[in-house]
This record gives sequence, structure tokens and C-alpha cells, in this order.
Amino acid sequence: MSKLAVVLLSGGMDSAVTAAIAKESGYDIACLHLNYGQRTEKRELKQFDKLCEHFGAVSSMVTDVRFLSQIGGSSLTDERIEITDANLDSTEIPSSYVPFRNANILAMATSWAEVIGASALYIGAVYEDSSGYPDTRRDFFDAFEKVIEKGTKPDTNIKIITPIIDMGKDEIISKGLELGVPFDKTWSCYKNNEKACGRCDSCGHRLRAFEILGISDPVEYEIRLSYKK
Amino acid sequence: MSKLAVVLLSGGMDSAVTAAIAKESGYDIACLHLNYGQRTEKRELKQFDKLCEHFGAVSSMVTDVRFLSQIGGSSLTDERIEITDANLDSTEIPSSYVPFRNANILAMATSWAEVIGASALYIGAVYEDSSGYPDTRRDFFDAFEKVIEKGTKPDTNIKIITPIIDMGKDEIISKGLELGVPFDKTWSCYKNNEKACGRCDSCGHRLRAFEILGISDPVEYEIRLSYKK
Repeated sequence: MSKLAVVLLSGGMDSAVTAAIAKESGYDIACLHLNYGQRTEKRELKQFDKLCEHFGAVSSMVTDVRFLSQIGGSSLTDERIEITDANLDSTEIPSSYVPFRNANILAMATSWAEVIGASALYIGAVYEDSSGYPDTRRDFFDAFEKVIEKGTKPDTNIKIITPIIDMGKDEIISKGLELGVPFDKTWSCYKNNEKACGRCDSCGHRLRAFEILGISDPVEYEIRLSYKK
Repeated sequence: MSKLAVVLLSGGMDSAVTAAIAKESGYDIACLHLNYGQRTEKRELKQFDKLCEHFGAVSSMVTDVRFLSQIGGSSLTDERIEITDANLDSTEIPSSYVPFRNANILAMATSWAEVIGASALYIGAVYEDSSGYPDTRRDFFDAFEKVIEKGTKPDTNIKIITPIIDMGKDEIISKGLELGVPFDKTWSCYKNNEKACGRCDSCGHRLRAFEILGISDPVEYEIRLSYKK
């Protein structure tokens, strides 16, 4: 019998590479997309569908989690807050912070995993570009695994796999290229224009990583700035 | 400066007593109600509003968490599944089970608590009437506290308080009477009729407890059966 994993798939680059790694590890994948009211939701959902098709997902689910925008404190979920331009050297927690977001995500994923009988959750958390988010550290995920152990049925056994947590963006892209990830089907920009803006934090990290690798990002940009140090 | 606690308040009896205990312990309370698509939602929300007023809540929030009904497996969230009549001696996990529900609830409550600066979460989990739900044991809550410690900002300190977890229904009611909880403003029935049905599991537990105490439940019932052993 094949193994089943729930993969958190946002439509971005990191989660796409994470899905590819789950497949490479022999899992059938069930993909979970969360709509928490970002500006970029429609775009991400389109990429989600394309990626599910690419990876041959056995199941997919889109859940509405706009309560996170209600809780507030996030420029990704509040139209009134300006998105700041990329400042890759800042150590402050950015305004796009949704408190304790990963715990909410993992709780939902675990509920679904228990229902469909999945034995793993794959999440594309990356410590390096977490800008100090406390819920992207491996010891947070370890603690959450204990909660799963305590809070699910005795015969349920679900581990949390964070395959890219210690990678840099360039390593993630290298791994993705090795596994044939269709980067043209991913979307990272915080804005929701026809082309990626090339100026926000997320575009900055992505462009810099492709630049380091000497590869052209297949996504179209309004402007391709150099972020190489 | 007064202490602030987030209280999960469903509109039922257990959470109302829990709110009263939080107040008694010197907390200002911020009440969180979750709409996860139960048949009884409108009724519960009405009771929630009345209870917020009664307790002088400094803040209240209602969040839509219907994704739990999407995940399925619950008679409370799926209109097609019949609600079974009370069988208080059964040790089976009942059909109203939403897998890992308390983890989802605590994750939301923690996000809100971090935003508003609350230092405690009060949740009216009761082990005795959990019918074997794995996420109502204190060691589950202890594990979740570790997740909060790891996944929130360094200066955030939130404990999970489960004041009625080891109480029987009759003890909960006694405590509530002592603290002046307006039980007429609570709703426990799984059905959504004008009066409580008196026949479902939840009515059965409630009626039995009032019967043990020799007190008449102020809520109106279609029928008052005796559940005393």
C-alpha cells in the first residue's frame, strides 16, 4: 500500500519544491491550500490547481481561513496596510506577520490527515527567510508533533516533515530544478498584478536566488532588479 | 494593570461556567466564539451575546471556521448524518467527533491572544463527557502550551487553563450556581428547536446532572426524561 502525505501547497515556490520532495520520497500527495484573504489569493489558487495537476495529487482541498485576517496584524490580509519594499537585511518581524499562523495551518492539516489516513504532513517552512517568525523553527514543529501524538486517535501516527527548513533560496531552487518543478507555475510576489512586481520582499528573495544560480527565473517581472550583495 | 484572558465561549453550560471562573480569578475576559457550521449555530450565538453581556466581556469575536465541516466526519457539521439518541454508557467515539478540533480552536485563540496581549486561554474542556476524544486530556493541553511557548514571540507568555476538566457535570453546575452563572442563557441541545429536545446526548448529560443535584434546569425542554442510573 502506498504512503499518503498531506502537503501544504500555497502556489509559491517553496511549497512546490516541498511537494516534489514528498513525491520523490514515495508519497502519494493530498494537497491543502489555505485562503486566508491575501491580496494574491486568486493568483495563488490558479497556481495551486496547476501544481496539483503537475504532481498528480490524489486529493486536494481549499479551505477558507479568513479568520486570520480578522485577527489582524498583517499587511498580507489587511488592504489598508502598505506593503513595504524589500529590505533583505532587516531583522525585524515584518508587517506581513500573522501570529501563530503555522500552528493554525498544522492543526487544519492534521484534522484532514486523520480523516484521510495520511501519515505525514509536508510543510515548506524556511527558517532563513522567516525574518524571525517564531513558528518556523524546527523545535516548534517538534513540539507540534507531540501535540498530534496526544490529540489524535491512538492508531493515528502523523509526522511533520520540513524538508527545506534549513535551505537557502538558491538551494531550494537547485533542488526544485533537479526534481523538475515547474517554476513558471509558481507565484511568489506579494502584489497581484499581471507580472510579478520585482520589488517586494518576496520577489527580492526569489530574484536574488536565481541570480546567484545564474539562471533566469521563468516568471515574468515588471522589473528585474539585482539584489545580489 | 488587570490581567486579560481569552475565553472560548460556545454558548453552552461548560464554557459559561469556565468564563465565570476566569472572572473569579481576576481576569478581564475577551470572548471567542467559533462558528463551525453546527445545526445549532444561531441559537448558540444568541446565548454567546447574552453571556458576553452578563460577564462584561471587554472584547468579543466570532470566527467562521466552517472548514471543519468541510473536513467532515461529524454529525454536528453534516446535515446528512443522523444525530444518535443519548447512550451515556457508550465508550465509542461519537459521530459528532471533529478530529483534532481542540488544537484548531487553541491555535486560533492563541493568535488572538497574542494580538490583544492576553496571558491566558480558558477552555471548558471536560474529560468525563469527552467520550474518549483524545484532545480533551490535560496532557494534550500541556503539549499545546509547549507549542505556544515555541511558536509565539519571545515576550509572549500564554498559559492554557482548563478549570473544569476533571469535574463531573453536577460539579460544574454546582460551581456555576455558586458563581451566579445564568444557566437560562446557555444552550446545550444538539438540535435546534424552540425548546431543548431532552433526548440527545447533550440534553441527557445535562438533565442527569441537574437531577443529581435535585435542581430544576431553567431551560425549557420538549420532554424531561430521567437519566439517573
